[in-house]
Amino acid sequence: MADQKPPVSFIGLGAMGFGMATHLIKQGYTVTGFDVWAPTLKRFEAAGGLTATTPAEAVANKSFSVVMVATAQQAQAVLIDGPNAAVPQLPQGAVVLLCSTVPCDYVQALESQLKSIGRGDILLVDSPVSGGAARAADGTLSIMAGASEEALEKARPLLAELSDPAKLYLVAGGIGAGSNMKMVHQVLAANQILAASEAMGFADRLGLDLAKAQETILSSDAWNWMFEHRTPRIFTDFQPVASAVQIIVKDTGIITSEGRRRGFATPMTSTAEQIYFTALGRGYAMDDDSSLVRLYTEGKDKVGPVHGTSQSEEEKLALVVGLLKGINLCSAAESLAFAHAVRLDLHQVLDLCINAAGGSKVLQKIGPSIIQQLQGQSPDGETGLQEIAQELQAAVEEAQRIKTPLYLGAQAFNIAKRLPGGGPAGVVVKAWA
Amino acid sequence: MADQKPPVSFIGLGAMGFGMATHLIKQGYTVTGFDVWAPTLKRFEAAGGLTATTPAEAVANKSFSVVMVATAQQAQAVLIDGPNAAVPQLPQGAVVLLCSTVPCDYVQALESQLKSIGRGDILLVDSPVSGGAARAADGTLSIMAGASEEALEKARPLLAELSDPAKLYLVAGGIGAGSNMKMVHQVLAANQILAASEAMGFADRLGLDLAKAQETILSSDAWNWMFEHRTPRIFTDFQPVASAVQIIVKDTGIITSEGRRRGFATPMTSTAEQIYFTALGRGYAMDDDSSLVRLYTEGKDKVGPVHGTSQSEEEKLALVVGLLKGINLCSAAESLAFAHAVRLDLHQVLDLCINAAGGSKVLQKIGPSIIQQLQGQSPDGETGLQEIAQELQAAVEEAQRIKTPLYLGAQAFNIAKRLPGGGPAGVVVKAWA
Repeated sequence: MADQKPPVSFIGLGAMGFGMATHLIKQGYTVTGFDVWAPTLKRFEAAGGLTATTPAEAVANKSFSVVMVATAQQAQAVLIDGPNAAVPQLPQGAVVLLCSTVPCDYVQALESQLKSIGRGDILLVDSPVSGGAARAADGTLSIMAGASEEALEKARPLLAELSDPAKLYLVAGGIGAGSNMKMVHQVLAANQILAASEAMGFADRLGLDLAKAQETILSSDAWNWMFEHRTPRIFTDFQPVASAVQIIVKDTGIITSEGRRRGFATPMTSTAEQIYFTALGRGYAMDDDSSLVRLYTEGKDKVGPVHGTSQSEEEKLALVVGLLKGINLCSAAESLAFAHAVRLDLHQVLDLCINAAGGSKVLQKIGPSIIQQLQGQSPDGETGLQEIAQELQAAVEEAQRIKTPLYLGAQAFNIAKRLPGGGPAGVVVKAWA
Repeated sequence: MADQKPPVSFIGLGAMGFGMATHLIKQGYTVTGFDVWAPTLKRFEAAGGLTATTPAEAVANKSFSVVMVATAQQAQAVLIDGPNAAVPQLPQGAVVLLCSTVPCDYVQALESQLKSIGRGDILLVDSPVSGGAARAADGTLSIMAGASEEALEKARPLLAELSDPAKLYLVAGGIGAGSNMKMVHQVLAANQILAASEAMGFADRLGLDLAKAQETILSSDAWNWMFEHRTPRIFTDFQPVASAVQIIVKDTGIITSEGRRRGFATPMTSTAEQIYFTALGRGYAMDDDSSLVRLYTEGKDKVGPVHGTSQSEEEKLALVVGLLKGINLCSAAESLAFAHAVRLDLHQVLDLCINAAGGSKVLQKIGPSIIQQLQGQSPDGETGLQEIAQELQAAVEEAQRIKTPLYLGAQAFNIAKRLPGGGPAGVVVKAWA
């Protein structure tokens, strides 16, 4: 197969799927694409793809299929339940990469279902991805894949085509483990997407120049991947729509549902989720998620005469940086604590997340200390937590003076504050233990 | 004095102050009122009061003065800092009841300030009130008064005129203790005002008839005073404006600021505060606080085709009741834990709160068990916490399906869930310990 590239079917040609599928074409694969939206198929043909009008037609005689639809419901429809579903047409022993972000539960149920309908021969791979549309099109995604050894063995060359060699993670634990890995990564995404808006909204309410605030954050310890990739669109009227609000709402729901099912509390992600629902209620579902900054900026002229105590630009910038660092810390702790609860390899999770869309400087610096705490060791270092709590406190106090909401910042502060003072920053994860 | 009623000055004739001052007139007092808003003075004259054009003029030769302005800043202005301030004109040994809701800090600083400007003779009483405008006008308020023994002794008859005999609380601890008592009471108010809107908004999003939902809640274990007194105005386009959003914002700020100062985390009240800031940002500051329901209902037609799993009206009503009970429980726990942290007499706090605007059936039933837990005893009873957590979970899950935010409900659920399963409901307060 390394020499001779097999024909591949590709179901779901959205922002991510289209990039992945056309990348395969560029690498010399014959790719037959299917999508419910006809204009996409035209575009796919123009990019050198073959097209099919049903999932069944797409997968017929293909030993390799990739499913990159938006939800578990859609996956179930195109594979089994819908009209002209794919599974009956899949050849014996076909490899199916399910790359959508779905609950661990779902992909495990799908595996059982395939067995119960007599298609246990299908080599299902639970392989969600991360990295955004640009990396999808470059074939440099982060991919986290769980499956049987046989399935992983056969799927590996195709997974390798789609991913950066350093970012293909084979996750121990079989079907479900890949989705769990993605889920804990999405804890970072769910919080840091909103945090980008919260930081920029706070900067705006403080009267800062937003370009300057953005630049300062990008070169500070508050850097995170989402902030870097979301905030540019704040300056272009939230155009183009790169990732709609409704996408992260779906992933957030997977996290909080699975948390409830397992008895694992997700105070940060639950807070973000309520604000995402608020955004849906405002009619923002289809807007780029950078536009969530509107939830923070709109009060500017409506809260009456308010006065903060921060004076200089430097002081104000420090408040915004402190806010974002504190949120990044609590996001990192919630993500790693959840990974621990679902028994993932924490070092693999950390390595994945640092190099994917969930990455942040805080995660990189403090993640190892969080893992030590989770594993019952004393985290290295003497200090850190109190400093971060103090910076959060300064931000929350100033926000209170100027009457601007800090949904995540207030939550992070209350979490950090509940812990007895001092100690390395990784100790914060005790709040989830 | 019981026989011969002394002349009284009254500074601040807003919704509460006007009622209190005119009640004193009806009881035979000569009351000289001052307010910055001229039309109020006309109305006060019509009600039989005398009026003054400055605080200094109002208090001249009055051995008893009541200050019922909105904020600590206003109190400081009318007493000391503003033009024609009252203090220089107060006769030697005058009794001053500061009935405004102010931070403990402030009233303690005021006491020191009086001493430092040579007016240590003034008998200051820290005596915030609760009960709403109707009880103010009836002279049946709840009052929590802290002061020196001499001041309390002299102030008592006047305090008794303004309060229900069973609801006058003399709080041990001197100046500041009354304000602390009010602050912990306001934890209940801050959460339960928003909770009224959250419960009714959730009912609306579930498709319930709101009058039926209201009636069901009022006769259920989810009853609380705020719900009973706020929700009627949901049916009258939020008219009349009985208590504006900006009022509870101020009290909420006292709670969270004092919490930060003392290192006491207030996860419930902090959540409410962010939503209050959201409301200010929407331009709702001057609207009746029952109108916060808009923050929940507006998404009705904007969240796309969503489907809950609850079918019958009964099932849906149970979700709303469960939500509100869970919020009431966590409000009660946050209030009593904070009272414990500021060293108030917990049984006095409980008695006060049950009989004031912070009252709820949950507080009445579970408050004693929360106090046992706080005092290191094992709370009575075997069960309760898990049931409440399960009811919260059912509400949060359905809200997620229909994409409606439950700001307080999600927070309460995450708090209740973090605790190891089982045990009496009072155990929930461990989350604040």
